[in-house]
Amino acid sequence: MKNITLLIHCKDRAGIIASVTGFINQYGGNIVYIDQHVDRENEIFFMRLESEFERNDFSIETFKFNFDESIVGKYALSWQVFASDYKPKMAVFVSKYDHCLYDILGRYNAGEWNVEIPLIISNHEDLRPLVESYHIPFYHVPIAKDGKQQAEERQLQLLQDARIDFIVLARYMQIVSAKLIRLYPNKIINIHHSFLPAFVGAKPYHSAYKRGVKIIGATSHYVTEELDAGPIIEQDVARVSHTHSIDDLVRKGRDLEKIVLATAIKLHINRKTMVYNNRTVVFY
Amino acid sequence: MKNITLLIHCKDRAGIIASVTGFINQYGGNIVYIDQHVDRENEIFFMRLESEFERNDFSIETFKFNFDESIVGKYALSWQVFASDYKPKMAVFVSKYDHCLYDILGRYNAGEWNVEIPLIISNHEDLRPLVESYHIPFYHVPIAKDGKQQAEERQLQLLQDARIDFIVLARYMQIVSAKLIRLYPNKIINIHHSFLPAFVGAKPYHSAYKRGVKIIGATSHYVTEELDAGPIIEQDVARVSHTHSIDDLVRKGRDLEKIVLATAIKLHINRKTMVYNNRTVVFY
Amino acid sequence: MKNITLLIHCKDRAGIIASVTGFINQYGGNIVYIDQHVDRENEIFFMRLESEFERNDFSIETFKFNFDESIVGKYALSWQVFASDYKPKMAVFVSKYDHCLYDILGRYNAGEWNVEIPLIISNHEDLRPLVESYHIPFYHVPIAKDGKQQAEERQLQLLQDARIDFIVLARYMQIVSAKLIRLYPNKIINIHHSFLPAFVGAKPYHSAYKRGVKIIGATSHYVTEELDAGPIIEQDVARVSHTHSIDDLVRKGRDLEKIVLATAIKLHINRKTMVYNNRTVVFY
Amino acid sequence: MKNITLLIHCKDRAGIIASVTGFINQYGGNIVYIDQHVDRENEIFFMRLESEFERNDFSIETFKFNFDESIVGKYALSWQVFASDYKPKMAVFVSKYDHCLYDILGRYNAGEWNVEIPLIISNHEDLRPLVESYHIPFYHVPIAKDGKQQAEERQLQLLQDARIDFIVLARYMQIVSAKLIRLYPNKIINIHHSFLPAFVGAKPYHSAYKRGVKIIGATSHYVTEELDAGPIIEQDVARVSHTHSIDDLVRKGRDLEKIVLATAIKLHINRKTMVYNNRTVVFY
Repeated sequence: MKNITLLIHCKDRAGIIASVTGFINQYGGNIVYIDQHVDRENEIFFMRLESEFERNDFSIETFKFNFDESIVGKYALSWQVFASDYKPKMAVFVSKYDHCLYDILGRYNAGEWNVEIPLIISNHEDLRPLVESYHIPFYHVPIAKDGKQQAEERQLQLLQDARIDFIVLARYMQIVSAKLIRLYPNKIINIHHSFLPAFVGAKPYHSAYKRGVKIIGATSHYVTEELDAGPIIEQDVARVSHTHSIDDLVRKGRDLEKIVLATAIKLHINRKTMVYNNRTVVFY
Repeated sequence: MKNITLLIHCKDRAGIIASVTGFINQYGGNIVYIDQHVDRENEIFFMRLESEFERNDFSIETFKFNFDESIVGKYALSWQVFASDYKPKMAVFVSKYDHCLYDILGRYNAGEWNVEIPLIISNHEDLRPLVESYHIPFYHVPIAKDGKQQAEERQLQLLQDARIDFIVLARYMQIVSAKLIRLYPNKIINIHHSFLPAFVGAKPYHSAYKRGVKIIGATSHYVTEELDAGPIIEQDVARVSHTHSIDDLVRKGRDLEKIVLATAIKLHINRKTMVYNNRTVVFY
Repeated sequence: MKNITLLIHCKDRAGIIASVTGFINQYGGNIVYIDQHVDRENEIFFMRLESEFERNDFSIETFKFNFDESIVGKYALSWQVFASDYKPKMAVFVSKYDHCLYDILGRYNAGEWNVEIPLIISNHEDLRPLVESYHIPFYHVPIAKDGKQQAEERQLQLLQDARIDFIVLARYMQIVSAKLIRLYPNKIINIHHSFLPAFVGAKPYHSAYKRGVKIIGATSHYVTEELDAGPIIEQDVARVSHTHSIDDLVRKGRDLEKIVLATAIKLHINRKTMVYNNRTVVFY
Repeated sequence: MKNITLLIHCKDRAGIIASVTGFINQYGGNIVYIDQHVDRENEIFFMRLESEFERNDFSIETFKFNFDESIVGKYALSWQVFASDYKPKMAVFVSKYDHCLYDILGRYNAGEWNVEIPLIISNHEDLRPLVESYHIPFYHVPIAKDGKQQAEERQLQLLQDARIDFIVLARYMQIVSAKLIRLYPNKIINIHHSFLPAFVGAKPYHSAYKRGVKIIGATSHYVTEELDAGPIIEQDVARVSHTHSIDDLVRKGRDLEKIVLATAIKLHINRKTMVYNNRTVVFY
């Protein structure tokens, strides 16, 4: 048996759901999940569908060819199909903070996610022992003041050699280049330690303390060229009070960051996200 | 243009989604919403679908007839169809507590819900002035110690004369009879002032205080014959501490109760709930 | 028996708590509540204390005189004393939105707060019937394009004639003048319909929708001359998704706004707030 | 400089706060934190106080002697004093589940807590490699069907040899004996994977699924002889829906369990908890 996940979006029109589900059915598929959304403001239709195919000779390439022929042109669909038995390859970028990395490695080790981590890249050596204790290759790519471009090319080489599907910035304290972002569109997941769009940029806990907020947050988003402005995947918050020092906020925030980032990674791995107009449709 | 909402459930089988969406499409409908769920433990399929029909001569009765002929038998569907331009009729039962009633009347007055309230029934006279200030008929049906059955028959007469579709118990402090429950299955919505199944029955805030919980809750559920054990529609919680007296819990709980009950009412009005095996599928 | 609440803040120094509690004790008081906070960054000490005095001849004026003599100078205290049997006088400013006003009037009517509402002021006539149904004087103070100053003087006259202690802006859609703010420092409570500092200014729900946030919020704060930048008293949030339209956010936000504003009002009435450096110490 | 934390409770009476703070002050202490609570139902007074003593010859034993002489008898105080520079010794009991242990070791390693872990005890060998990778002694104390008493004596010996101050049951799947509970009263912290008092006992996620709750929870409490009925230290919840299978609840619950247990451990280490009448006063 073969399982696929189909993500589509297009201009909203009558009959799309019936056409797509009819096609799947005639192709011998059993639809096990369907969810859809219409963005009424922009008149865009989104759909996520999972189907099982029982026949032994099912080929995802042939399916794609036939789906393209029969449906895609008619509705001018943007679409993606994923085989459920494929394990996406995830790279992790870190600097020196280890709490998100600990959490990722723990979940990876426990088999919580359908993912493979072929490599972890850092601009520091600090986290090498932790990473290597999990038998994951660790690459130190230092970023010299005048050697940023060189470092990026080294990163890119590593990513392409390992056929990485998406990248997680686990409190990676560097700004990622426009080139990398364009090569991995909506495929670089960042965790920002504030409730965006509040406190964009550096030192958000300091700013939160100064502003005297009663709730702090964390935000996971896809990276775009504008800093901390990419499409939001997941957010969460925690209540604080005047008794919390900046250090307390940092500590409390660490638990938020871990869980928000882990949730976003899980949604991405399970193909539950679709981006349009800098907003993320999340099919929970 | 005519809009309908279709709710179905049946034994899970391949092809149901394609069959139903194909039927709607051939019937000239444009599917504007579809959501489905499979209860894998019990192998039950659930679907909620909204469709628009543009033709002027669309008749919901003819649609039902044809859907029944073409689809229902094949899959042994349990199903319901609702015309979106029908305003369901809601009765409210109250005793003396007014906070939930204030909230319901405020939302009703603001036009927040697609609903009509033809009558409000109470076993006390206290809330008559409030109800009548909203120009809603108020019926005082006192419950004498040995006249419970008589009171219920009076209630039933009022409900049937007004062609009531569903009933909201807005902190109605009486136990509803099995007869009424059977006549309105999954159509009587209660608000219980605890996080069920904790603190079933009377005085849950007293029990919560005594147990020293750090979070209190409220639960809205459909009424079944077993007390406080019906299918849960919505729950919410609020953090408390040792500094809260029982009165503080009661006060804090009032805000929870209002919002949880209002959410459940809205979900019911919008046909977003389906009950099976004493659990509620809620299509948010 | 007489109850008082004492709020003090000063440069942090050894011995303040012992000095103050010793004074209260010698004066015949029984301390029934004490809470304190030290802002270590600024080395400021804050304390809130409630005390009962049993003797019949207790006079708050004499107490103030003696406290001033014995303690205030020694520690260069900023301080306030309130008699618990005094009911503060609250003015409410509204425009056309009624949800916060409904909530305030419901709680006022239910006796939930130790407060008196001598008057409600609006720049529109719309809410007069609602206000007058609660037998509260309603004043329509329209704001002509070139008559803003005149309107403010009328408002001020009304506030002073009624000896108002503090003002609640219950979705009052006008900017309050610097003069009024200076006359009522940390005594004007606003509700802003976003999770500040995100989405300052007009139409925050539109901005939240556009940014694609997964959580919306509401913030109650004391009004200062900088728009939406005053000390935060209370915040709360609610989870949203891509399925929520702007109208859905507005509707969901109304419930947040009501509860956040009500919480802030209650904290203010109970003298639980102290402002320093644009942050609010809240003694829960 | 020496810091102490003082916890007291007694029958509520006038003058306690002034007496205690006066004593500290005369003894040369600077009170840096004070919080108090009166349980009005039972008329019990609780206080937590931190004080700094600058003189070099400060001795906590002498302080205790003097405090006992001057204050304790007068108010019939129950009291405890802790030196802040003492690191409490924590034992951890585990079975096979590793998520809470991972979290505890991560925080321990990061220096998040003022605690020492001299040993970890398990009835299985599974988690030995994890524990030993942190260089913490691991003791395998298997529990034979007819050898429960023998195992407990071995545990007790280990605890006493290491002078353990308190015990954390990190998803330890065994019931602890009454003898151990009596030797460590309010010093054994358990994490239960439900929102107590809902779903006491085994398999709470199964019960939560069956009941169809819309929110799940976790509860950390001190262990008493009645199962899952001890004083609650901390609780937290997460929203779920009909789409979550039992496995999903288990997975989602793991994140709750970790954070709730870590919060309870931190409160205990920082002497922020006091138990009375099976309820926990938590001075946040």
